Amino acid sequence: MDVIERIYEIDIDKNSEQPLYIQIYEKIRDLIELGILSANAKLPPVRKLASRLNVNMVTVINAYRLLEDNGYIYSRVGSGTYVSPMKAKSVQENILHDEDRIIRDDFKLMDRGQVYIRSDAINFAGNSLSPEYFPVDIFKNLIIEILERDRGYAFGYQESQGFLPLRESIVNFLGEYGIYTTPDNVQVISGAQQGLDIVSKALLNFGDKIIVESPTYAGALAVFNTRGAKVIEVPVQSDGINTELLEYNLKNNRIKFIYVMPDFQNPTGISYSLEKRKELLRLAKKYNTLIIEDDYVGDLYYGESKEMPLKALDNGETVIYIKSFSKLFMPGLRLAFLVFPTKYYDEILSAKHISDISTSGLIQRVFDLYIRRNLWKSHIENVRRIYKDKFKKMIDNLQKYMPKEVKYNLPKGGFNFWFSLPDGINSSFLYGEALRKGVLIIPGMVFFNNSALGERYIRLSFAEVKDEDIEKGIEMLGNIIKQHMDKKVQKSLSPLL
Amino acid sequence: MDVIERIYEIDIDKNSEQPLYIQIYEKIRDLIELGILSANAKLPPVRKLASRLNVNMVTVINAYRLLEDNGYIYSRVGSGTYVSPMKAKSVQENILHDEDRIIRDDFKLMDRGQVYIRSDAINFAGNSLSPEYFPVDIFKNLIIEILERDRGYAFGYQESQGFLPLRESIVNFLGEYGIYTTPDNVQVISGAQQGLDIVSKALLNFGDKIIVESPTYAGALAVFNTRGAKVIEVPVQSDGINTELLEYNLKNNRIKFIYVMPDFQNPTGISYSLEKRKELLRLAKKYNTLIIEDDYVGDLYYGESKEMPLKALDNGETVIYIKSFSKLFMPGLRLAFLVFPTKYYDEILSAKHISDISTSGLIQRVFDLYIRRNLWKSHIENVRRIYKDKFKKMIDNLQKYMPKEVKYNLPKGGFNFWFSLPDGINSSFLYGEALRKGVLIIPGMVFFNNSALGERYIRLSFAEVKDEDIEKGIEMLGNIIKQHMDKKVQKSLSPLL
Repeated sequence: MDVIERIYEIDIDKNSEQPLYIQIYEKIRDLIELGILSANAKLPPVRKLASRLNVNMVTVINAYRLLEDNGYIYSRVGSGTYVSPMKAKSVQENILHDEDRIIRDDFKLMDRGQVYIRSDAINFAGNSLSPEYFPVDIFKNLIIEILERDRGYAFGYQESQGFLPLRESIVNFLGEYGIYTTPDNVQVISGAQQGLDIVSKALLNFGDKIIVESPTYAGALAVFNTRGAKVIEVPVQSDGINTELLEYNLKNNRIKFIYVMPDFQNPTGISYSLEKRKELLRLAKKYNTLIIEDDYVGDLYYGESKEMPLKALDNGETVIYIKSFSKLFMPGLRLAFLVFPTKYYDEILSAKHISDISTSGLIQRVFDLYIRRNLWKSHIENVRRIYKDKFKKMIDNLQKYMPKEVKYNLPKGGFNFWFSLPDGINSSFLYGEALRKGVLIIPGMVFFNNSALGERYIRLSFAEVKDEDIEKGIEMLGNIIKQHMDKKVQKSLSPLL
Repeated sequence: MDVIERIYEIDIDKNSEQPLYIQIYEKIRDLIELGILSANAKLPPVRKLASRLNVNMVTVINAYRLLEDNGYIYSRVGSGTYVSPMKAKSVQENILHDEDRIIRDDFKLMDRGQVYIRSDAINFAGNSLSPEYFPVDIFKNLIIEILERDRGYAFGYQESQGFLPLRESIVNFLGEYGIYTTPDNVQVISGAQQGLDIVSKALLNFGDKIIVESPTYAGALAVFNTRGAKVIEVPVQSDGINTELLEYNLKNNRIKFIYVMPDFQNPTGISYSLEKRKELLRLAKKYNTLIIEDDYVGDLYYGESKEMPLKALDNGETVIYIKSFSKLFMPGLRLAFLVFPTKYYDEILSAKHISDISTSGLIQRVFDLYIRRNLWKSHIENVRRIYKDKFKKMIDNLQKYMPKEVKYNLPKGGFNFWFSLPDGINSSFLYGEALRKGVLIIPGMVFFNNSALGERYIRLSFAEVKDEDIEKGIEMLGNIIKQHMDKKVQKSLSPLL
C-alpha cells in the first residue's frame, strides 16, 4: 500500500479523554518520526482525511495546525500540505549520522522501551517487564490500605533518605542476597537511572576519569558524559570485564570509580564468574578506587541460582550497590535504592536532596508493605518462571532461523541476547531493514561512546515481545541477514567475546 | 529536668510496624542531632531504660548497637555508654561553623520542613502547605478511579516528557495566567527542585556564570554550585532585583541565565513591580541571556490579584518557567512542570531522561483528572482563604510583640516574612536561643553563598505553624530579641531593602 495510505489507517479512540485532534496529531507525528512518511511527502487533503476517519473537518485542521506549529509539516498556498524535510530525515539516514545526539537519544528511549511503537510491531527493543505481568490489583489494594492508614502523611514531605520502614524492609530482604547493611546505608531513589545521576553528583568532578564496561548501558554513558567525566571503556569477555586491560588502566590513571553490571550485563547478557568478581574487587582495593555495581535484573536467573553480588563479597567500603525495583515490577513506579559505604553518607544524601528532595512518599509506603508481606518475593518467582519459558522459546527459534555466522553467547539470565553480525551487514542497516518490516531491534552503537564500534552488534530483548511473535520476528531477522551477508565462505570467525 | 531525663520521655509506639529498637534508635539520634544531648553525656544503663520504657532489654541493646554502629555513641568498658563528640557538636557551635556543608544541609532540610522537629515545637521553619489541608480523600478516590480506568498502563514506562493529557491540562490552565504555550513546550518534572537540576544539566557547563537574587532559595544555590557554576548574587529590593547592579553584571560577564522568583520571593517575600518585570526582560533580551522564573507560590496572593508572570510578558524565547504543584498541594507527591522555549527542546528532554527517565505515571494521571475536574482551582481558592487569615494573625502579633527595631517588608502573598535584626543580636544566636525554647526559625545564612551576609536576617514562615502557636511563638522571639539587642538608642536604621 502507498505509504500515505498509512495515514488513513491511524487508530483514533472517540471515547478517550484525549482530544481527537491531539490523537491525530500524535499518530501523524509518529509516522514522520519513525521515517515512515518521508520528506516532502504530500499529506491527504483535510476533507478526505476527515471523511475517512469519520471526524469533523475542524478536527483535522487543528491537528494539521499543531503539526505545522511544531515543524512537522509545511503548506504551499493552493497546493497542499507536506512533510517537513527537517523532521523527516529517513531513519536510515539518521542512523548513518550516528554522532547526532538527538538520534542517539531516540535509541536511548528505545532502550527503555519508550519509542512510539506501531501497535503491530514485533518489539525486541523494550527492556523491562511486559505490562501484562504487572501485579496491578494487589498494588491497588495496598494503595487503598496505605491511604486509609497514613492519610495525609503519605503525601507530606518525606525524609530525603527514604521512608525508614522501607529502608528497614530493604535491609531485611538484602540478607537473602548475602548483603548485610543498615537502614542508614540505604538511600531510596526514583529509579536506577537516578541512582547513576546521584552517584555522579556525589563523586564526580569535571574531568574525573572513570571506567565502564564496553559495551555498556546507554543511559549510564549519557549521565557520565554530561557530568564532564572522561570515560574509559574496557571490553567485557564472556566471564566479565577484561581484568588485564582493567589493571593497565587503573595503573595509569587515577580512576574515581568502575561502573559494572556483574549479572546478565546490559547489553551483552554475560555474567561475571566468581573469580572475576573477586579479582575485580581485589583490583579496586589495590588501586584504591570504588565500584558502582548496577544490579540490573539479577533476580532473573534461569539456572538454579546465581553468583553473589559484589556487594556481598565486599567488606562494606568498596562497592556502591544500585538495585531497581522498577525493571522487574512496574517501571512507571520509579523506585530503586542505593547501598553505600558510610563514608559517603553526606555526599549521597546531599546529591539526592538537590536532585528531587525525596522520592514519592506514597509509592515508598505502598512498596514497603509489598515487601513486608512477601509479595515481592512471590512476584519475582512468578516472573522468573514466565521468562524462563520465553527464554527457551528464544533459543529454539534462534537455532532454527539465525544463520550460524551470527555469533552470540548464551545468557544465564535477564532479557538480552547480544549478537555479532557477519561481514556484509552492519547493524544500522539491519535496524532500518527490520523496522521497515515491523521488527524493532537495538543497533549496537548506542552502547559505546565511540559508536562506530557498535556497527557489528545488535541487541535483542525478549522482555516485551509477545510469545506468539518470537518465531516470526527471529525468522524475519534471520532472512534479512542471510540475504545481505557476504555469500563467500566465512572462515574461522572468532567467538563473540 | 536533667537533659538525660529526656531519654526516658521518648515516645514509642508498640502497635507500629516499625520495630521498637529502630524507634528508640531514631529518637535518641534526634536528641543528639538537635544538640539536646551534648558531647560525652552518659546514656542511661540498658536495664534502667528498658524498664522505664517497658521494653525488653534486648530491644535497648539493639538500639544502642545501632547508635554505636552509626557513630552516635561510644562505650567505655565497665563504665557505660556516652554521646559521641563527633555527632554532638552543640547546635550553636554548628551554626558558628557556618561553612560546614553538613550543617548547611541541615538548614536546607529545615527550609523544606524536613528537620526532625520536636512534636511540641512551634514551627516557623516549614515552608509548604500544612498536612491538615491536604485534599486526601478526593485524591484517594481519583487514584482508585485511575487504577480502574488505566490498569497496568498507569505503571508502565511513561513518555519522558510527561503524560500528554496532563501536559494538555497544564497548557489549558496556564491560559488563566496569561501564558500561552503548547504541550510540546511543557516538561513534567518530579518537583521544582528537579526543575532546577534539569535546567542546570541542560544549560550549564563547568565554569559558566549565572546570576541569582540575593538572598535566594538554598536548594537553588546548592544545585548551581554542584554543577560548577560561578554564581553572582545581585541584591533584591522591595520591588525586585536591583536592575542597575544586574545590568552592570550582564555587561561585564557572559551570563548563562538569571534565576528569579518574581512573586513572594523566597526568602524575602517581596514581589516584582510590573516595571521591574519589564526591565528584567528587556535586559535579558539586550544581553542575550535567559531567565529562569521559579513560580514558587504565585497562586497565594492576599490582595485582589497579582502581577503577570514573566513568562506571560515574554515572546516565548527568553523565559524558562518552573511551577510546582507540590508546594501548595501535597509536597510528598513530587510533581511540577517546566515551560521552555522550543529551541531548548532537545536539551531539556535529554536532561530529564538522564535524571530519572520519567515522573511517576500514576501521579501524573491522577493529577491530570484533578485539574480537568477543576478541583485544583477550588483547592487553591480554599488554601488562599485559609492562609489569608493566618497572614493577618501574623501581622497582628508582629505589631504587638516585635520590637520596632526589627525591620521587615509586608509581603503581598506567600508564606514568608524576612526580618533584619537590630545591632547586638545575630541570627545564629537567635536561632539557637529560639530552638532551646522550642521555636524553630531559619537563620539568614542559608540563603547566601557567602553565609556571613546572612547573620543579620531571619526568615519566619507561617506555612506549617499552628494558628494557636503564632502568638506564643512571636512573643517568645520578640522577648529574646528585646533581651539581647543593644539597649542604646538605635537611630535612623535604614529600611530593610
